[in-house]
Amino acid sequence: MASERVPSVVVVGAGGVGVICALSLCTKGKSEVSLVVRSDYNHVEQKGYQIDSCDYGKLDSWRPHHIFKTAEDAASEGKFFDYIIVTTKNIPDGPVHSKVENIIKPMLLNNHSIDATRQSNILLIQNGIDIEKSILETFDQKEYNYTILSGIEIVGSTKIATGTIHQIGTEKIFVGAFQPDDSRAKEAAKQFVDIYLNEGQNAAEFDPRVRHSRWNKLIYNAAINTTTALIGLDVPRALQFGVDGKSTEFEIFRPAMKEIIKIAASEGIILDEASIDIFTNISRNLMFKPSMCVDREKGQLMELEVILGNPISIAKKNGVDTPILSNLYFLLVMLQGKLKEANGLIKFDEETCRIVN
Amino acid sequence: MASERVPSVVVVGAGGVGVICALSLCTKGKSEVSLVVRSDYNHVEQKGYQIDSCDYGKLDSWRPHHIFKTAEDAASEGKFFDYIIVTTKNIPDGPVHSKVENIIKPMLLNNHSIDATRQSNILLIQNGIDIEKSILETFDQKEYNYTILSGIEIVGSTKIATGTIHQIGTEKIFVGAFQPDDSRAKEAAKQFVDIYLNEGQNAAEFDPRVRHSRWNKLIYNAAINTTTALIGLDVPRALQFGVDGKSTEFEIFRPAMKEIIKIAASEGIILDEASIDIFTNISRNLMFKPSMCVDREKGQLMELEVILGNPISIAKKNGVDTPILSNLYFLLVMLQGKLKEANGLIKFDEETCRIVN
Repeated sequence: MASERVPSVVVVGAGGVGVICALSLCTKGKSEVSLVVRSDYNHVEQKGYQIDSCDYGKLDSWRPHHIFKTAEDAASEGKFFDYIIVTTKNIPDGPVHSKVENIIKPMLLNNHSIDATRQSNILLIQNGIDIEKSILETFDQKEYNYTILSGIEIVGSTKIATGTIHQIGTEKIFVGAFQPDDSRAKEAAKQFVDIYLNEGQNAAEFDPRVRHSRWNKLIYNAAINTTTALIGLDVPRALQFGVDGKSTEFEIFRPAMKEIIKIAASEGIILDEASIDIFTNISRNLMFKPSMCVDREKGQLMELEVILGNPISIAKKNGVDTPILSNLYFLLVMLQGKLKEANGLIKFDEETCRIVN
Repeated sequence: MASERVPSVVVVGAGGVGVICALSLCTKGKSEVSLVVRSDYNHVEQKGYQIDSCDYGKLDSWRPHHIFKTAEDAASEGKFFDYIIVTTKNIPDGPVHSKVENIIKPMLLNNHSIDATRQSNILLIQNGIDIEKSILETFDQKEYNYTILSGIEIVGSTKIATGTIHQIGTEKIFVGAFQPDDSRAKEAAKQFVDIYLNEGQNAAEFDPRVRHSRWNKLIYNAAINTTTALIGLDVPRALQFGVDGKSTEFEIFRPAMKEIIKIAASEGIILDEASIDIFTNISRNLMFKPSMCVDREKGQLMELEVILGNPISIAKKNGVDTPILSNLYFLLVMLQGKLKEANGLIKFDEETCRIVN
């Protein structure tokens, strides 16, 4: 990228994470920020966002530089986006239009048509493992001249009403290159930290070992996110409702976490076993419902494949035994089917007892 | 029992099973039948039952010989009950008064005080394994002079409204002695078949090997009842919503069934593996929700301990590995905790994140 040019950024997904992401960028003032708002578009266009943020205070009628109703609208403006940031849920088994490769497609193609020599950087601020693969399989990396960046975001931020964001936990983001040998991606990740970090407000760090970080986060998500989603319980209740207050921890959480550590090891990624204690204890005494549990209770599809399906595929490929994780997966697949039916994504015929295509 | 005396029977539990049980006995006309009605008492006392039965036709204002509001009321009439039949759910982790040993207590004690030399026969028409043990542990069998009979009931009967019973499936009951060496129990079971069987209407058979039959039924209940309860799905959907329509069957149902067969074998009970196919296919193409699933959806406690907890205890004692069943159990224990909290049986303090005693 030319140094004199202010990078242009588009954020797709205007939930609790996406809006704070746009706000952090705008606060820094080193980029031009577009946000794809979709369902809240009319409200935000007229009234802007109402934000109550522990990092940035109370904001009324806040807007980023540009808002768009769809990714297609953003792409049709004739603007090159140096960073295409996706903050939606990653649900490869969900509706076609919500798959990550389809979300970025209009903007990546538009960038390519504007200037094929200029580098696009796709930043996925999403859960799970192997989420970059469908992009690499869909778009030739040389032809479309892009890098893929990983964002691991820790932020207690929720859209509590239309155009209304409530952030209660300080934002911390780790950004790095999905492909460890891609030096251009590393540079882009470092530049992103530079246009994102607001000292004394949020935190942003370059992540030199993305896969390691993602597997580490998966220790929590694959064990605790999944279990609580299956039962529909916050973490403290899930722990206390076990046999003698112990079986959830010692028969599910900890063995499942160990299975993730074994799968990661089979990929050459050595995780610190201390994470098991940390993640088991992190919300033992704190009322917290992980995201998959929240999704299930809202009747929305869960990020099941990227959190559990993909790690299990890797385990199978590498010959790692995963009795607990596999059982959780095969149970959650049924729950996901129930959610799909409730959302009209599949139809079940009670006469033939079969899914109708 | 003296042959000239008509046996006196009390049925505790007036749901779909209990009312048809009383009706079968009354139709035969060889016993004096009392029914403990509890919640529907006032309605039934005034208007009797409205019954639509595939076995006995449409009945209006039907009543057995006697109705009582509680087991205590039944016991206080000064009447000796030759058969004490329990058709309630068996939930040892439920409220104290609903434990089976407490349900039968007033009548067994009353029988004992009326005539300690006369034999009481306790017939448990309930799901699960080892359900006779709490009775044997609570009441000395010689002192209280009782036998325990096992009833396995197949009947599509439901209480669809207050005092209103709808029976769509012909009743079939298998009755035998829980204790295989108890010849008095075997005689009592055979006599029961005699006072119960209405040729051409219902079916009743003496069961010479009770534990075998119960373990066989457990093949279905421990695998399919449990899984569908966990997700809240009927059996056909549970099967079809698996990965490629297969994982529920091949990764959960069939392996779980095999574990039950292994546990039974460790107890010297050799089950026919053909049951796995039979039970997997029995409701593949038939909309059906097993009882634990129905209970969960009604917000009622599930028969988790007698269907899954007890077999797993036996497996542990005998060194049988049960990865699938144990995982289902530790998940369902959390769901049972959620149901207990919703029913006010436990309290959870969100400040301390602990169950309050």
